[in-house]
Amino acid sequence: MSAIPGKVVMLAGGVGGARMAEGFARALPPGSLSVIANVGDDEEFYGLRVCPDIDTLLYTLADRIDRAQGWGVADDTVKALDVLRELGAPAWMKLGDSDFGLHIWRSWRLAGGASLSEITGEAASRLGARAGIVPASDDRLRTKLLTDQGWMDFQPWFVGKRCEPKVTALRYEGATEARPSPHALQAIASADLIVVAPSNPLLSIEPILAVPGLIDALSASRAPCIGVSPLIGGKAVKGPLARLMRDMEIEPTCAGVASRYGDLLDAFAVANVDADSVVDLQCRGLAILPTDILMDGPHGAERLAREILAFSQTLKAGV
Amino acid sequence: MSAIPGKVVMLAGGVGGARMAEGFARALPPGSLSVIANVGDDEEFYGLRVCPDIDTLLYTLADRIDRAQGWGVADDTVKALDVLRELGAPAWMKLGDSDFGLHIWRSWRLAGGASLSEITGEAASRLGARAGIVPASDDRLRTKLLTDQGWMDFQPWFVGKRCEPKVTALRYEGATEARPSPHALQAIASADLIVVAPSNPLLSIEPILAVPGLIDALSASRAPCIGVSPLIGGKAVKGPLARLMRDMEIEPTCAGVASRYGDLLDAFAVANVDADSVVDLQCRGLAILPTDILMDGPHGAERLAREILAFSQTLKAGV
Repeated sequence: MSAIPGKVVMLAGGVGGARMAEGFARALPPGSLSVIANVGDDEEFYGLRVCPDIDTLLYTLADRIDRAQGWGVADDTVKALDVLRELGAPAWMKLGDSDFGLHIWRSWRLAGGASLSEITGEAASRLGARAGIVPASDDRLRTKLLTDQGWMDFQPWFVGKRCEPKVTALRYEGATEARPSPHALQAIASADLIVVAPSNPLLSIEPILAVPGLIDALSASRAPCIGVSPLIGGKAVKGPLARLMRDMEIEPTCAGVASRYGDLLDAFAVANVDADSVVDLQCRGLAILPTDILMDGPHGAERLAREILAFSQTLKAGV
Repeated sequence: MSAIPGKVVMLAGGVGGARMAEGFARALPPGSLSVIANVGDDEEFYGLRVCPDIDTLLYTLADRIDRAQGWGVADDTVKALDVLRELGAPAWMKLGDSDFGLHIWRSWRLAGGASLSEITGEAASRLGARAGIVPASDDRLRTKLLTDQGWMDFQPWFVGKRCEPKVTALRYEGATEARPSPHALQAIASADLIVVAPSNPLLSIEPILAVPGLIDALSASRAPCIGVSPLIGGKAVKGPLARLMRDMEIEPTCAGVASRYGDLLDAFAVANVDADSVVDLQCRGLAILPTDILMDGPHGAERLAREILAFSQTLKAGV
């Protein structure tokens, strides 16, 4: 029996991150995994705080996710949203009834003074999530996109406009002043392995890394850090990543992705088809795990997680 | 064709009031009826403003009501509430998913600075209610009950404890300082007939009359005012009225009800079975309409409304 890391910390966004998290949660003993979630795409709807990445992680890790669409609660209804629409409220964000239960509770707890970290931890525990979920920061941090229609908030661009407006720049409003969640710092401090999920680097991972105290803690950690490429053969498994990278004049390749993470990565898991394209990175000292990185359901995610965990042992041996 | 009052104003609470309002809405041309609703049993749940009497009026007058239970939206689901319960929130108030849509919207609009009157009017219009619905006041006004377990808020007593704690006193917190809704004053100023619905006098009508500017306007109106008894043979059709009156040492009779309204009433519709018991009131100048006051569905309510409208013409003739 090979030793596996006792504590794993993952940086993750929504759908792809949640799938990877589920794989690790299945591969590791209970209590081993903490997922630090992007909060840059949080938004208020009707005065309620919606945290799409946290929620996708929660629902996936609690096995409530609508697996066909990758987000939202399975078999949810939209009665509340239908009424809101009838009442003349904008209703382009598809929020289900079960979903509203969580948003109402979170907003109520926030108004009562609880931190987003406390609330998220409690929700993960009560809903039966198989891993800890920690927001990158309890402070306000919002991803804004400069598009050909001017500066836009994330959800109006992502959901409202289906990612159509061309993006030329991003900023993570509030990130510089944001303090890292104390729970995130604790998780990083005790981590034996750090995983950067195959989430969108620009929209999911960089808003996490933009929190100064968080990137400092990650840099200070002696745990190896392994990224998983969100691109396969230059294409994203899901979402607007490849086009976004091109629009922002970033090469839509594994090397392009790795370039966004600076010195953070010690290793990078890439698709077999991309192995040749990362030889340069390898020469510069990045350990490469070429494998099948497509997560075909929870079993596929677990298979990939196990490969990464095994590979991480070789990194430790090499330190 | 006998002339009917051009504008009717009704004072109403929840279930019984909504049934009576539906009857009048069916009997009158569109735009004739304004219902001034009790707000004393409003409550915040999870930071959302719930107005049970307004909502019962809205759902009834928009033909969305769950007719079997008399409140809530027909065929509603409780997914949001189920999640709230899972998350450890108190969940004794049965709020459905469609219901939550309205509460979310109202709370959002209130937070944005709209008045409860504006919001309620807009909801009535958008949801297709067959009458105007006006809160008695836009200010905070809450019915509190002194019980054998101490002072209680209304909903925890009414729903949470199923009216079980014995009540010895009531107060309508905030009523003295509350300003009447300007919409309510307008409706009263143009009223040709004022109807006091067969709602609970102590819990539904008196919190309305407790708003000084409102009782002043009602007293100043020259329109005849007719009450409808909520008791038949000393028993309430629905709800805790008879026991509440006994507990508060008020005679649970039509005369006991009428005594709560001071000089407001010019006439009183009572059950045939109660006609003999109100001879004293009649001698003191109150016009009595003895009839079948049990509203058996919308048709029964319409029948009663038409009788009251016809009777009101005799009152006018007598002024």
